[in-house]
Amino acid sequence: MNFETAHPREIREIIKENGYLFPTAGIARGYAQGNLVVLPKELAYDFLLFAFRNPKPCPILDVTEAGERVFRKAAPGSDIVHDLPKYRIYKEGVMTDEVTDLEEYWRDDFVAFLLGCSFTFESALIEAGIGVRHIECGCNVPMYKTNIECEKAGIFEGPVVVSMRPLKRSEVVRAVQITSRYPGVHGAPIHIGAPEEIGIKDITKPDFGDAVPIAPGEVPVFWACGVTPQAVAMEVKPEIMITHAPGYMFVADIKNTELAVF
Amino acid sequence: MNFETAHPREIREIIKENGYLFPTAGIARGYAQGNLVVLPKELAYDFLLFAFRNPKPCPILDVTEAGERVFRKAAPGSDIVHDLPKYRIYKEGVMTDEVTDLEEYWRDDFVAFLLGCSFTFESALIEAGIGVRHIECGCNVPMYKTNIECEKAGIFEGPVVVSMRPLKRSEVVRAVQITSRYPGVHGAPIHIGAPEEIGIKDITKPDFGDAVPIAPGEVPVFWACGVTPQAVAMEVKPEIMITHAPGYMFVADIKNTELAVF
Repeated sequence: MNFETAHPREIREIIKENGYLFPTAGIARGYAQGNLVVLPKELAYDFLLFAFRNPKPCPILDVTEAGERVFRKAAPGSDIVHDLPKYRIYKEGVMTDEVTDLEEYWRDDFVAFLLGCSFTFESALIEAGIGVRHIECGCNVPMYKTNIECEKAGIFEGPVVVSMRPLKRSEVVRAVQITSRYPGVHGAPIHIGAPEEIGIKDITKPDFGDAVPIAPGEVPVFWACGVTPQAVAMEVKPEIMITHAPGYMFVADIKNTELAVF
Repeated sequence: MNFETAHPREIREIIKENGYLFPTAGIARGYAQGNLVVLPKELAYDFLLFAFRNPKPCPILDVTEAGERVFRKAAPGSDIVHDLPKYRIYKEGVMTDEVTDLEEYWRDDFVAFLLGCSFTFESALIEAGIGVRHIECGCNVPMYKTNIECEKAGIFEGPVVVSMRPLKRSEVVRAVQITSRYPGVHGAPIHIGAPEEIGIKDITKPDFGDAVPIAPGEVPVFWACGVTPQAVAMEVKPEIMITHAPGYMFVADIKNTELAVF
């Protein structure tokens, strides 16, 4: 099977049989991928409220009802328990296991959240001729904790984490316009230039991911990052929380073009 | 005090003292008003999920945490218990009382939702020179139940209710563009012309509000309506539910222009 051109449904079937255990970047081209967060129902209202109050770092593509194993809207017929190549189990905020399905851990009081990921707007930038540095470098995007506080909801609080992409000054306006079209996957940047103003002391030392070079005349541009809700949920040290393993995302049936608002 | 030009905060103070007991249309010009829905916490997750799945009829401007009496984001310092001119109390789906404050009914397990209302986009239409028929006629907007089902969430389900504004064919494109800018207050129309296609049998007999004349050459244009979530919540016959009285809205500190996405 050509994973680049295959339909998400076919890919999820293969993943389900453990026939694909690689990072998902670049597969099912044209379709959105998402971050997975699974929490017990007792935390679900506060987490959903947190996402509503912080839509840029926590854009919700789908939410299940307690015990449901399918993302009905984002991927009808999907199986959250098997359809990701790799999951991480956290207990009291500590990673305790990495698994290829959730059979052993699934509970009927679990609620699953699918959160938008930047792959969608990166495709749109590339199609517009704007290079994405970490893709060019073949590494992970650099991510930084900021001094911008998320809006608190119930027990959930913490700083916004941003991802950074260096752009030529001549590309900045177009990049704002393009990513503004995708509010469901982080949307427009939240900061342009001057990393110190948002509490980033050393741009060469990201808190997560890999450093990328910034050429003379380029400006670092910062987008709210999907690591934020995971980092925030982790702080609360929930009894149990499950996420995708970094880079091993949920491949949804939603076309990138469906996420464009205008 | 000139209620048209006063700040929402001043107006809420007067309302709190029962100094203003009229419908709120036309006051605090330039600021958004919202529909109030108050439910016990045990229904809050499902209702928030319902709103997330049906953003056009249920655009959320703010949500409280259980027992909070303030819309922290939409109106810092507000008091949900006193700041609306008139409230309705529903028990098991039946209206049992109409009150000017909630002192007698308020409970610590209540969650309050502020839902966007069409006043914002109607102002924008009028500023663009597009007449809004029911305002010209000095009556309530006509509203219809449709054959379009909301996406179910937990116990909440039911049909989308739409509001209708007749427009000249030459105004339709511009009206779509203008209202598309306001996804937080119902956004773009969901249907244009052909009422029978969405299950409306007789356009002269709205299910709620008042009929308005449609001139020859005009097209009925339909927007998702904020009555939807109330109608849906009512169907569930919750032990208790509180809403604003029709036309007596919550006046928020959010400027209409802040709700425009581009």
